[in-house]
Amino acid sequence: MPRWVRYRHADGRTSFGTLDGERVVEHAGDLFASREPSGMAFALADVKLLAPCTPSKIVALWNNFHALGAKLGKKAPAHPLFLIKPSSSLAGPGDAIRRPSGYAGRIAFEGELGIVIGRECRDVSVDEAHRFIFGYTCVNDVTAIDLMNENADFVQWCRAKGSDTFGCIGPAIARMFDWQSARIVTRVDDVERQNYPLSDMIFSPEEQVSLISRDMTLFPGDVIACGTSLGVGSIKDGATVEIAVDGIGTLSNRLATGAFVEAGAA
Amino acid sequence: MPRWVRYRHADGRTSFGTLDGERVVEHAGDLFASREPSGMAFALADVKLLAPCTPSKIVALWNNFHALGAKLGKKAPAHPLFLIKPSSSLAGPGDAIRRPSGYAGRIAFEGELGIVIGRECRDVSVDEAHRFIFGYTCVNDVTAIDLMNENADFVQWCRAKGSDTFGCIGPAIARMFDWQSARIVTRVDDVERQNYPLSDMIFSPEEQVSLISRDMTLFPGDVIACGTSLGVGSIKDGATVEIAVDGIGTLSNRLATGAFVEAGAA
Repeated sequence: MPRWVRYRHADGRTSFGTLDGERVVEHAGDLFASREPSGMAFALADVKLLAPCTPSKIVALWNNFHALGAKLGKKAPAHPLFLIKPSSSLAGPGDAIRRPSGYAGRIAFEGELGIVIGRECRDVSVDEAHRFIFGYTCVNDVTAIDLMNENADFVQWCRAKGSDTFGCIGPAIARMFDWQSARIVTRVDDVERQNYPLSDMIFSPEEQVSLISRDMTLFPGDVIACGTSLGVGSIKDGATVEIAVDGIGTLSNRLATGAFVEAGAA
Repeated sequence: MPRWVRYRHADGRTSFGTLDGERVVEHAGDLFASREPSGMAFALADVKLLAPCTPSKIVALWNNFHALGAKLGKKAPAHPLFLIKPSSSLAGPGDAIRRPSGYAGRIAFEGELGIVIGRECRDVSVDEAHRFIFGYTCVNDVTAIDLMNENADFVQWCRAKGSDTFGCIGPAIARMFDWQSARIVTRVDDVERQNYPLSDMIFSPEEQVSLISRDMTLFPGDVIACGTSLGVGSIKDGATVEIAVDGIGTLSNRLATGAFVEAGAA
């Protein structure tokens, strides 16, 4: 079960490859098309892991878990309910989460499974959807929670969830991942805050890909964030959030304190 | 006042240039960086105009005109209210608008002004915002209106407005455009349906760029759709919608009839 990562060398060059213990085995080509080992390998300690893919969009679901829907008193939807997080929101493992300019309100974590699309996909059936899924990653669907309902006439989903560094994904993309038996575990400063089974999803990954592909074309590297379940909460400045999934790895991001901090500096 | 277009030759090669009567004057380089005339020019009749830029995201405003807000009984917002239309929604002049798969409901037109970003832009002031605006284009913010409120718990802005071909922009990008004195005129099959002054905007283009750049980084080629005003309505299958702005041009798109039609085939 290879796990794919992207990374940057100290000289700024970026590449991708598979994890092998404490090493990364470099590959050449296109992650989603033809690729082969380059013959090189590097110590993980010598490279900076990046977001494992560069989505043109992140499609982020709301109300996709029975347990959270029951708690909120919401009926299971008939079609995935989603917003778009733009490509500018992308952050990778270890990147700092940054407050939007001038925003002093609460910032929430949401640990989620991410589906990584492998092939361009439009109007595909549930049965064939698995052929368009490259693999799975961890997502922290960061949210400026106090912006959401700031205006009484319009729930600001895209603004509250679309800021730079609010689309944290990684550390790796796992293929042949058995989501039915996996759990999302979220820890804030080592305290467990979420631990829920992916089997509680309302729409399976294959249903999400099929139904969303009827709404819009999905491209290789696009990510569907499957929605979160019980236990979401806010992050104090300086706290570190970990989203851990057995078989994928642990995505760790710290909410920057004080002034502007460049992504990757944490 | 040059007007910039992108276009495709019959052999599939794409390029960009300025309009000069019935000709396009080809340029080489990068529209948003260094560019110069290539020395070639082509008859407009011999090329297919494309969307004049390729946004990574379209930020689409809601409730940005006093007249429409008054009609709907909505207060002017304190910050631009927006959703994201993904890059996959892009369509250019003459492209067919296509129904989402399986959707038989109403499709609405919304004639709007589009701001085209020229330089990467994050947290800029209103005073400096003009330096990040490359120019202006016409937008048809197409909407599958019956999807919007299909679910009682979640207004589906991104789904209803995010389908392929629902982000129509063009035909050109005008620089040095005097938006204060311009009007948006929308015609459906030659019948005027919208005719409103841009001076009625709640947030000026400079305010939009400044305030949205506090929420997220804007990239060269990104488009802000400034929101619409009075007169929006639905489009019958086969009808042609024109969004016309003096100084920019006329963006024309037809709602395809029947089965799937490739973009550009209309």
